[in-house]
Amino acid sequence: MTADFDQVRRFWQNPSVERALIKYDIASSRAHVRMLGETGIINRNVSQKVIEALAQILKELEDGVEFLSANDSDIHLGLERRLEEVVGDDAKIVKIAKSRNDQIATDIRLWLRDVSLEIYSKILDVRQVLVTLAERDLEVIMPGYTHGQPAMPILLAHWWLANDARFRRDLSRLKDLYVRMNALPLGACAIAGTNQPIDRSLVASYLAFDDVIENSLDAISDRDYLIEFSSFASIVGTHISQMSAEILLWATQEFGFVRLPRALVFRSQNMPQKRNPELLEILRSRPAILNGRLFEFLTQLKGLSISYSQDLQECLPGLIDVVENLKFILELTKELLPTLKFDLKRMRELANTDLTNAANAVDYLVERDIPLDKAASIVESLVSYCKERNKQLTDLSPNEWEQFSPVFGHEIYDYVAIDESVESRSSFGGTAQAQVTQALARAKAILDADHDFVRDLTGSKVKL
Amino acid sequence: MTADFDQVRRFWQNPSVERALIKYDIASSRAHVRMLGETGIINRNVSQKVIEALAQILKELEDGVEFLSANDSDIHLGLERRLEEVVGDDAKIVKIAKSRNDQIATDIRLWLRDVSLEIYSKILDVRQVLVTLAERDLEVIMPGYTHGQPAMPILLAHWWLANDARFRRDLSRLKDLYVRMNALPLGACAIAGTNQPIDRSLVASYLAFDDVIENSLDAISDRDYLIEFSSFASIVGTHISQMSAEILLWATQEFGFVRLPRALVFRSQNMPQKRNPELLEILRSRPAILNGRLFEFLTQLKGLSISYSQDLQECLPGLIDVVENLKFILELTKELLPTLKFDLKRMRELANTDLTNAANAVDYLVERDIPLDKAASIVESLVSYCKERNKQLTDLSPNEWEQFSPVFGHEIYDYVAIDESVESRSSFGGTAQAQVTQALARAKAILDADHDFVRDLTGSKVKL
Amino acid sequence: MTADFDQVRRFWQNPSVERALIKYDIASSRAHVRMLGETGIINRNVSQKVIEALAQILKELEDGVEFLSANDSDIHLGLERRLEEVVGDDAKIVKIAKSRNDQIATDIRLWLRDVSLEIYSKILDVRQVLVTLAERDLEVIMPGYTHGQPAMPILLAHWWLANDARFRRDLSRLKDLYVRMNALPLGACAIAGTNQPIDRSLVASYLAFDDVIENSLDAISDRDYLIEFSSFASIVGTHISQMSAEILLWATQEFGFVRLPRALVFRSQNMPQKRNPELLEILRSRPAILNGRLFEFLTQLKGLSISYSQDLQECLPGLIDVVENLKFILELTKELLPTLKFDLKRMRELANTDLTNAANAVDYLVERDIPLDKAASIVESLVSYCKERNKQLTDLSPNEWEQFSPVFGHEIYDYVAIDESVESRSSFGGTAQAQVTQALARAKAILDADHDFVRDLTGSKVKL
Amino acid sequence: MTADFDQVRRFWQNPSVERALIKYDIASSRAHVRMLGETGIINRNVSQKVIEALAQILKELEDGVEFLSANDSDIHLGLERRLEEVVGDDAKIVKIAKSRNDQIATDIRLWLRDVSLEIYSKILDVRQVLVTLAERDLEVIMPGYTHGQPAMPILLAHWWLANDARFRRDLSRLKDLYVRMNALPLGACAIAGTNQPIDRSLVASYLAFDDVIENSLDAISDRDYLIEFSSFASIVGTHISQMSAEILLWATQEFGFVRLPRALVFRSQNMPQKRNPELLEILRSRPAILNGRLFEFLTQLKGLSISYSQDLQECLPGLIDVVENLKFILELTKELLPTLKFDLKRMRELANTDLTNAANAVDYLVERDIPLDKAASIVESLVSYCKERNKQLTDLSPNEWEQFSPVFGHEIYDYVAIDESVESRSSFGGTAQAQVTQALARAKAILDADHDFVRDLTGSKVKL
Repeated sequence: MTADFDQVRRFWQNPSVERALIKYDIASSRAHVRMLGETGIINRNVSQKVIEALAQILKELEDGVEFLSANDSDIHLGLERRLEEVVGDDAKIVKIAKSRNDQIATDIRLWLRDVSLEIYSKILDVRQVLVTLAERDLEVIMPGYTHGQPAMPILLAHWWLANDARFRRDLSRLKDLYVRMNALPLGACAIAGTNQPIDRSLVASYLAFDDVIENSLDAISDRDYLIEFSSFASIVGTHISQMSAEILLWATQEFGFVRLPRALVFRSQNMPQKRNPELLEILRSRPAILNGRLFEFLTQLKGLSISYSQDLQECLPGLIDVVENLKFILELTKELLPTLKFDLKRMRELANTDLTNAANAVDYLVERDIPLDKAASIVESLVSYCKERNKQLTDLSPNEWEQFSPVFGHEIYDYVAIDESVESRSSFGGTAQAQVTQALARAKAILDADHDFVRDLTGSKVKL
Repeated sequence: MTADFDQVRRFWQNPSVERALIKYDIASSRAHVRMLGETGIINRNVSQKVIEALAQILKELEDGVEFLSANDSDIHLGLERRLEEVVGDDAKIVKIAKSRNDQIATDIRLWLRDVSLEIYSKILDVRQVLVTLAERDLEVIMPGYTHGQPAMPILLAHWWLANDARFRRDLSRLKDLYVRMNALPLGACAIAGTNQPIDRSLVASYLAFDDVIENSLDAISDRDYLIEFSSFASIVGTHISQMSAEILLWATQEFGFVRLPRALVFRSQNMPQKRNPELLEILRSRPAILNGRLFEFLTQLKGLSISYSQDLQECLPGLIDVVENLKFILELTKELLPTLKFDLKRMRELANTDLTNAANAVDYLVERDIPLDKAASIVESLVSYCKERNKQLTDLSPNEWEQFSPVFGHEIYDYVAIDESVESRSSFGGTAQAQVTQALARAKAILDADHDFVRDLTGSKVKL
Repeated sequence: MTADFDQVRRFWQNPSVERALIKYDIASSRAHVRMLGETGIINRNVSQKVIEALAQILKELEDGVEFLSANDSDIHLGLERRLEEVVGDDAKIVKIAKSRNDQIATDIRLWLRDVSLEIYSKILDVRQVLVTLAERDLEVIMPGYTHGQPAMPILLAHWWLANDARFRRDLSRLKDLYVRMNALPLGACAIAGTNQPIDRSLVASYLAFDDVIENSLDAISDRDYLIEFSSFASIVGTHISQMSAEILLWATQEFGFVRLPRALVFRSQNMPQKRNPELLEILRSRPAILNGRLFEFLTQLKGLSISYSQDLQECLPGLIDVVENLKFILELTKELLPTLKFDLKRMRELANTDLTNAANAVDYLVERDIPLDKAASIVESLVSYCKERNKQLTDLSPNEWEQFSPVFGHEIYDYVAIDESVESRSSFGGTAQAQVTQALARAKAILDADHDFVRDLTGSKVKL
Repeated sequence: MTADFDQVRRFWQNPSVERALIKYDIASSRAHVRMLGETGIINRNVSQKVIEALAQILKELEDGVEFLSANDSDIHLGLERRLEEVVGDDAKIVKIAKSRNDQIATDIRLWLRDVSLEIYSKILDVRQVLVTLAERDLEVIMPGYTHGQPAMPILLAHWWLANDARFRRDLSRLKDLYVRMNALPLGACAIAGTNQPIDRSLVASYLAFDDVIENSLDAISDRDYLIEFSSFASIVGTHISQMSAEILLWATQEFGFVRLPRALVFRSQNMPQKRNPELLEILRSRPAILNGRLFEFLTQLKGLSISYSQDLQECLPGLIDVVENLKFILELTKELLPTLKFDLKRMRELANTDLTNAANAVDYLVERDIPLDKAASIVESLVSYCKERNKQLTDLSPNEWEQFSPVFGHEIYDYVAIDESVESRSSFGGTAQAQVTQALARAKAILDADHDFVRDLTGSKVKL
């Protein structure tokens, strides 16, 4: 079974997992050794020597010298072997008061913490784009839909800001889970702690962890953050998929609101007139991977004891897949949105139909004390009347209005005018331009604050 | 198609959904009407009259008088009809500056907020049990396992506290999502806001929401909290399922650590000697529902526009199912854990074997400057030697120890003694009794603080 | 814990599960007792007496007399108790050579088999509707889309038949899994078989099972059909959800292909002009439940031994939910499709644009030996030329055609004419009317054959 | 955005997807061109030339010459470019009456068909191992468990054959889905068929497809087999995960039934006595990926029209992942099972306790006309009596037996003897050796027949 057994090892030593974790393995080893020296558990000269050797190995790695070989059964043993090549027997001290169980748990958290910083930035990038587009489109009127049917005219800027609000919540979710993730498992050792007088807070401070995961059983087995991160990623993915699906709808010839630039559209071979929006389709479908991985992790965790087993490493290729695809869809979103060409005339035209104006005629009546039910029924007759004559409400003469209700006076023309309609929705969070302008200002301020937050967070991290 | 169409309505008017939401629909209507009066949008006398009528309807409902009839097409229209029966035409004002789209969004949040308070309490109940058991079992020694193999002796109290740490994180997750959930959508109206000079903050304060969801498109369509709550529930479920699976393992005859009391065990019909731990099996399997519902919600949300559609109500039966099952498994856990009978003698016996003591012999050597690899190999030979002779390490004579390494002296007997072994793991978060005692004190303090938090939160809620 | 414990029992004795299974429990008991008599394991008079008592209990049940009481710990014991009331001590024979483990496995299969027969019929109903609509719409031309962009004109009948093809495959999947499901577990007893000389084939024949599940461990633990049935249901659900999503697109004002009849549309309160297609939205979202349940079952099964445990019953409420929702969406689909009003003029109009005709102009050139790339580029210029002048290809004069390529002659007018375009796609399975007419004939023949199949299958079932 | 756009292309041109499909793209092109020549659509000399060029390109590919370059926007265009390099302008004919939409659908099916043949073989390999082990262990007695509690003694061979029965069903599922998968989409062209007089059956016969997918809309959009294959894979994965979980239980020290050979066990660093069964843990957890991918595919398909879009290609990396992991776990299972070392003495010992024998004592009484309830209660007292005295049922004197019931005579010793107990379960499918021996013979015969089936199927495939 030699051949097959090797294959197992190959699956195990998933190269992308190793690549992701190796430098964090060096970093956590270094912090651990530094603490061992500081607390006098080992001679400080020895610890210093080993720390320098680890720094050298890290540097070589960053210079492209990969030291892991096919014979190393995992990254921890590979690092120990390499360390021994550099400093000889002193290398052995890295094993003191430490096991693979707590170290792998530490490495994953260090890696996912750095990944989270990247994700923070990418979400901010998308929000920057959304805010910029909202500013650009403050005067663009389009139909607003419910149940897929035209309901009331809204500003395109309002729609961009609705999307911004979603990604704002996404960032807040990441902030929350980050706190639970940014805690140190190292020092739990294999399962029960150690008889060495280690100082776990010291290691936490070296590695810029905000907290220590106290209970040793919990420290080696906690993978809650897997589900939390993956669930967070699924929500971001859902937002992106939904936004893409909506833009794809707008990109149909029938809607005709938006076109992709030629450079981003892939030509049909046999149908030269076609512009296939594949990139948006990718953004609609790709996030499904995130959902699938979430299910995978939930299945993997079922039935495991509060302890360590190999099952807890089986998630890593999936987690890397989540991260890569999440980064990818955020980047693509950022690049794609500004390239969309909107047909403002078409959007305004479709907004300006009885289908969106009728609601305003109802408002007109209700404000003049006609009960809602009655008002709705009057306006329904009006709309039918128009349809039969192929007219719009705005085309009706004062006489015609009056036929349906004596309450209709000249002001009705202000109500059914599209700009006035938009302007009238001036409640807090409504689509009136004044409201949207204020909302935009708030969105920018929050974005600035979030930029500051991420900058501070990044600054507070130890450079590995 | 009358018959079938009725069936559609039946599915739609899911009775459990209606039952869950109706009193929140009254509450949100009342807060809305109060604001309409306060801002002068409607006459204050009228608003007062309607508020009183709503209070009456709520009281009747609490007294068991259900007013919804099969003819009401939804709870909003049913309430309007009933209101009209009570106050006549004034009932119509409840429709001003409000739509079904923002009201249902408000009702769900009000309901889920109350549900969350219940869940908070139930998590605290489970933690109270865990802490109490940890206190009881501070001196109970058992084998600790990794990879399902005995590794080192630990305290049972340490295991209880590891579980407590998990539920502590669960509570912290619920706190985080609660903040995002506890915001008011009402006032977004159908999609774009309203032309009435409503005051959304006022409504928020009446309903004890901490925030207003600003953007009207976002307010009617945001269901992120569905995924968040469901993902939170899945993590709680995973913890309970894992804990049950581990106890089921301990409840096998082969482990023999734990027995269920006769009252909770269902007798086998043909095999009188059997004690079937069905309740634990239910706790192992039931949480799967929570995972499935999470998948359901993620599927439902795919492809929806930032707007309102019926799809957003299709989740409600599933959400109620999540809540009911989550409450059930938390309750069952609370009831079941204290009834378990542990066989302390058996646990100690199994902890006291070479399989858990060998690690201490390795420690002994390493502390005396034998390199880890060498130490491990010496101890491995020792273990084999014992196995062949059916002895344990503790049975060996000083001579025999010395045969394997001259470094072994009399202190080795302290190392391989089980109590000493546990005591030696005295690093922060380790299993030494002193550590676990401190951890227990911290766990109690955090539990007290969380009790206070939930009490305050409950107190700050408006009584509906 | 009395109260809470009762709650456990309530969850356990899920009334909908009991209602679903009880009559199958009677049926399997009866078949078992009959075999016991037939093989001489018990006295034939006794067996006859018990069989008659079971028949009486079944009849009472069908007459609405529910015999299960809150004190019966499960349906098997409840039935035994009731049986004892009817025949006294002879009732005890039902326990001989039978356990709850193999009986519940038998009951579920009997139930799911009957359910499958209902599902068969409901799929046939939907297909009947699709075929009828295809026949009606053999001459209706509409645009065909790829990537959401108009590609080529097709017949609406072709689209109906594409949907029929999907449900045809669904039926074939159900047929396949039915075979594996329709096998008898009874006789496996608790786990290892029995020392009684039972005849399992006899029981299988009494209950119209095609096969006996041989291995006793396998018989009590096999729940593969759960996943198979649930996966089958998810595919059906996906088909229905996709079809609904496509019709919802067509029901937008912008597409304007289809309207729902007034009776099936729910009026917007504030926007009288709106027609909200909630029923289609339900069909789009409801199938998500099926996916979620599939995930639930996969999670539940993880980690279980090849044996019996309570976990294997935890799936039952979910399975009933799958069945009810599957039946519901099939029924609603059947009812809804024939009520849709198509705007044939609008569909033809949108099909008859350069966007769908250009491909035919390319064909024209390619058939006249212009390489595809070149042809596509010529036609692209033509389309731009038209767009600038707000013309369609059909409006161009022979002169204008020639400007772009001398190859264009008079026959080009046949190519860009929409009816000719449809007619030209006359390859097997293409959209040409002759092809679709043949496809329709085949679809009908297959539907007839499937009707016969289901009729035979239903006939071959034992009446319980 | 050049850089980012390139990145999109990189994601798109997933190298593993391209590697999987490219040779099938050549094969389907070749069959298509051959048909074009055969039907006279193109000159037969030209078709012959192109076929030879395709053969050459395939050969080069098999010799390791990869022709795709980073500039090829997909495999179809890359192949056309390469073909043009080889045969010049004649290369263009490959595009006639074919589009990317039907070709990619064909390529995936060709690939998955070959993959399925591999999976067939790997399932047969696992079954071969199971049957061999069953033959080896025909006399090995072990405890059988229900609810995790010892119930009755069974043969280990019986357990192996229960697993064989599961994989037998898996094969039957693959057979069923294979039929639906093995049908030709090519000829559907972009969406609506073609105006060329193609012969789709001819192409189907060239490519050894059993059927043609008639409807052109269905042909390009059908991805049902994705769900079917993925669901099949999840069931196989569930079987393997369950089997591994059960063996892991047996591999605990407390059960002590099984040990892994040293070569397959990874040594703990600090705990030399430990044998960590990582490989079994991988088999327990790895299948979770299959479940996750199934969820991914279901999410991707939601909301898609019956047509073609890029979404339909987004599944491919996931599908490859399913296939690779399914192959891996099947291989690992095959290699691992024969290496397990069973401790027959320990298994027999544990089987031979009151916990498994008591049921036989009950049988004894029931056969002597003691009602089951009474019998169970008698035996329960007996077991308690033994427990208090630390005896086993087999240790009791005739006198002691009689104390509990006068019915107990000398034959009771035959009943509670473990071998007799196993032998007594001689009903069809029971654990008696005679039964298991017959079951083994049947299992072998079915395995042989399945081997023949797969051999025939493989033989009937066209060599690409």
